Amino acid sequence: MSQKVKASTLPGFLELLPQDQIMFNEMMDTIRRNFEKHGFLPIDTPAIERSEVLLAKGGGNTEKQMYRFKKGDTDMSLRFDLTVPLARYTVEHFNELSFPFRRYHIGKVYRGEKAQRGRFREFYQCDIDTIGNGSIDIANDAEFPVVIYHTFKELGFEDFTIRINNRRLLKGFYESLGISDSVEVLRIVDKIDKIGKENVKSELMELGLNEDQADRIVEFTLIEGSTEEIFKALEDLNIENEIFNIGFNELKQVMNYIEEYDVPSKNCVVDLKIARGLDYYTGTVYETSLDNYPNVGSVCSGGRYDDLASHYTDKKLPGVGLSIGLSRLFYQLNEAKIIQAKKKSLVDLIVIPMDGFIDAGIRLVSKFRNSGIDTIVYTEEGKLGKKFKYADALNIPYVVVIGENEVKTERYTLRNMETGDQDELTVEEIVERLK
Amino acid sequence: MSQKVKASTLPGFLELLPQDQIMFNEMMDTIRRNFEKHGFLPIDTPAIERSEVLLAKGGGNTEKQMYRFKKGDTDMSLRFDLTVPLARYTVEHFNELSFPFRRYHIGKVYRGEKAQRGRFREFYQCDIDTIGNGSIDIANDAEFPVVIYHTFKELGFEDFTIRINNRRLLKGFYESLGISDSVEVLRIVDKIDKIGKENVKSELMELGLNEDQADRIVEFTLIEGSTEEIFKALEDLNIENEIFNIGFNELKQVMNYIEEYDVPSKNCVVDLKIARGLDYYTGTVYETSLDNYPNVGSVCSGGRYDDLASHYTDKKLPGVGLSIGLSRLFYQLNEAKIIQAKKKSLVDLIVIPMDGFIDAGIRLVSKFRNSGIDTIVYTEEGKLGKKFKYADALNIPYVVVIGENEVKTERYTLRNMETGDQDELTVEEIVERLK
Repeated sequence: MSQKVKASTLPGFLELLPQDQIMFNEMMDTIRRNFEKHGFLPIDTPAIERSEVLLAKGGGNTEKQMYRFKKGDTDMSLRFDLTVPLARYTVEHFNELSFPFRRYHIGKVYRGEKAQRGRFREFYQCDIDTIGNGSIDIANDAEFPVVIYHTFKELGFEDFTIRINNRRLLKGFYESLGISDSVEVLRIVDKIDKIGKENVKSELMELGLNEDQADRIVEFTLIEGSTEEIFKALEDLNIENEIFNIGFNELKQVMNYIEEYDVPSKNCVVDLKIARGLDYYTGTVYETSLDNYPNVGSVCSGGRYDDLASHYTDKKLPGVGLSIGLSRLFYQLNEAKIIQAKKKSLVDLIVIPMDGFIDAGIRLVSKFRNSGIDTIVYTEEGKLGKKFKYADALNIPYVVVIGENEVKTERYTLRNMETGDQDELTVEEIVERLK
Repeated sequence: MSQKVKASTLPGFLELLPQDQIMFNEMMDTIRRNFEKHGFLPIDTPAIERSEVLLAKGGGNTEKQMYRFKKGDTDMSLRFDLTVPLARYTVEHFNELSFPFRRYHIGKVYRGEKAQRGRFREFYQCDIDTIGNGSIDIANDAEFPVVIYHTFKELGFEDFTIRINNRRLLKGFYESLGISDSVEVLRIVDKIDKIGKENVKSELMELGLNEDQADRIVEFTLIEGSTEEIFKALEDLNIENEIFNIGFNELKQVMNYIEEYDVPSKNCVVDLKIARGLDYYTGTVYETSLDNYPNVGSVCSGGRYDDLASHYTDKKLPGVGLSIGLSRLFYQLNEAKIIQAKKKSLVDLIVIPMDGFIDAGIRLVSKFRNSGIDTIVYTEEGKLGKKFKYADALNIPYVVVIGENEVKTERYTLRNMETGDQDELTVEEIVERLK
């Protein structure tokens, strides 16, 4: 007996059994369908890029996590997100694209980070972005929550909240307090739900802010209420700062457009706590959470950026985008048993031939298939119980057995595998029943 | 101005513009839908595997073409096909799978081979396989041509030929001539369409066969006719060899089942020239070609194998499988302008607001979307001509312009972008027209 190699995936890589894969694909299809019907165009870029392209922005954590290798003299890496490939794609194909360029991209990305529960080294991202040539209207910022609203609705959720904020609003407010560098402030404020307001205050003071500044930031961040109430409170602050006013105006426009897109106000709210840690974002920012499953965390997020591809081109390419981390979302929903496949089996019927009747079974399958019933035939010999067990394991909803008697009478017992009900029917009657 | 990184993909990697991507995805969806309705279950394995797993079978060309790298101490590689991952998957999840295990897998594979026209270093394979636990009935061999028939039909082809042969039949015939090692003979015979019968004869004689053996092999290989005629000719040879008889019987059963599956005999034929170079296959083998596009070559091929996973397990896992090389197929069909997208645009309508009317445009889009018309809005300011050009570039079939007059009258001009026809209609009338 020869030495065997252990059949195992690498740690940190998600791999599903077929029944879970059906559910995963259903989610992916729903996301894709919603991206497409809102007018985002598909792209699919290579998973491997030149390392120089991926590292153009400068390394840090990203570089450490990259799967990087050489083939011949070429230094290449697996992509770690879909945004850098989008930037490269937009510049490479600039003359062949129409702007605003609205694209979606669903694909695998790779990060060799420490393996931990619910984090994967290979995972699917589902991204939509709209890229402008030179400029892009604020109306685009309103489109993303609309797509997300319809997507999550169709995924089966009622209670989810898309939280919207504007980084210019925050930056302008901090400036009005005399704080010119907002990057670190934003990073701290973004944690307020996790670490609480006292810790935010003390971290802000550690940063060099005085107590009054820190208090006012915390107070501002915690302004709550309906969109109208928040806007009223912001107006009452009487802040005279241009960036604040630009941001406030943008936020008002975005919320107004979202309303005109018929998104219920319960699903889409202003939340001044959403700051997003990344300094990449410059205006509108989004985060989405499932109200009944706070542990799942943010299920999709994004925002507006001023310059997508400054590392590859002098052209100014501002954009807005949003990303769903599908693998992580699926894993968490599945672990918590929140999701169920709409269709547990991809076929409607299995024909089980008695031993020696595979021939008749195939003829019968053909009849069902020609009538539009997705049918398979069990091909192996064996006990009837084993054959039924197979149908059951595959969640196939209906079984027809065929043997000598059925061939003679042309009447077949149709068994509903869920209820156990059986009926003796002709092919036509079975087709009618199943349609 | 900072130094820019060149925005380019690596050579040998396929990347499509959105309009071509729509077409590519349509093909992939058609393939997937056909795999699913014939009862193949989805799996999706990591693109990265332990190198030891991928190399278990032993290297050769494969090893040289692999993208192999280390992360920490782990030696890993990108998969070069979907068969090795299937073997690993089947063994790893053996106890959780139901046999016969019918799976499909559509995914990217990687081969760092020399770049040449129409060959890619990253490409999609679309595989179906049925794996038995210990054994698997010959009825399964008949299922694959059926799936391929329906898939290519739905892809829009009428004239294609699925060629079927049986390696046992060939092996038994060679044995009856006194040739015990058939591997090299098969490799040579497989080239007969490319190099011609004279060259096959001389190569066989170089291998050590005598002239009579070579002549008889060439003669046998070139037996032609309908299935009945070929079977008659084979019977008339009166070959007394057990392996030949097993193979002949299998071939007869397979062709009989295929007929019972209602596949037209013009699309599925016996062809004794199909030997397949790979020594992996043991029984039934398939190849498929497009009759009107011989240059495209074999568009999908496969066959039966006795032992899927002997490098990982002592369990005997025989199977049958078939693979479509989608990227190459798409590239060739697209280059030859053979294919066209059924739906060139994923949305039905674009609303173009006159400058200053984006607000009204969004309200209008909402009405269309709520009525089930997939609609987008053009968001940027500019000349009307530029906005129409955008609709045209994206192949969006209908345009509605909205400005002061339209807001007042609630009647809109619907323009058919293909014919140029225009009609002044209400929202309800437009919805009716577009549905």
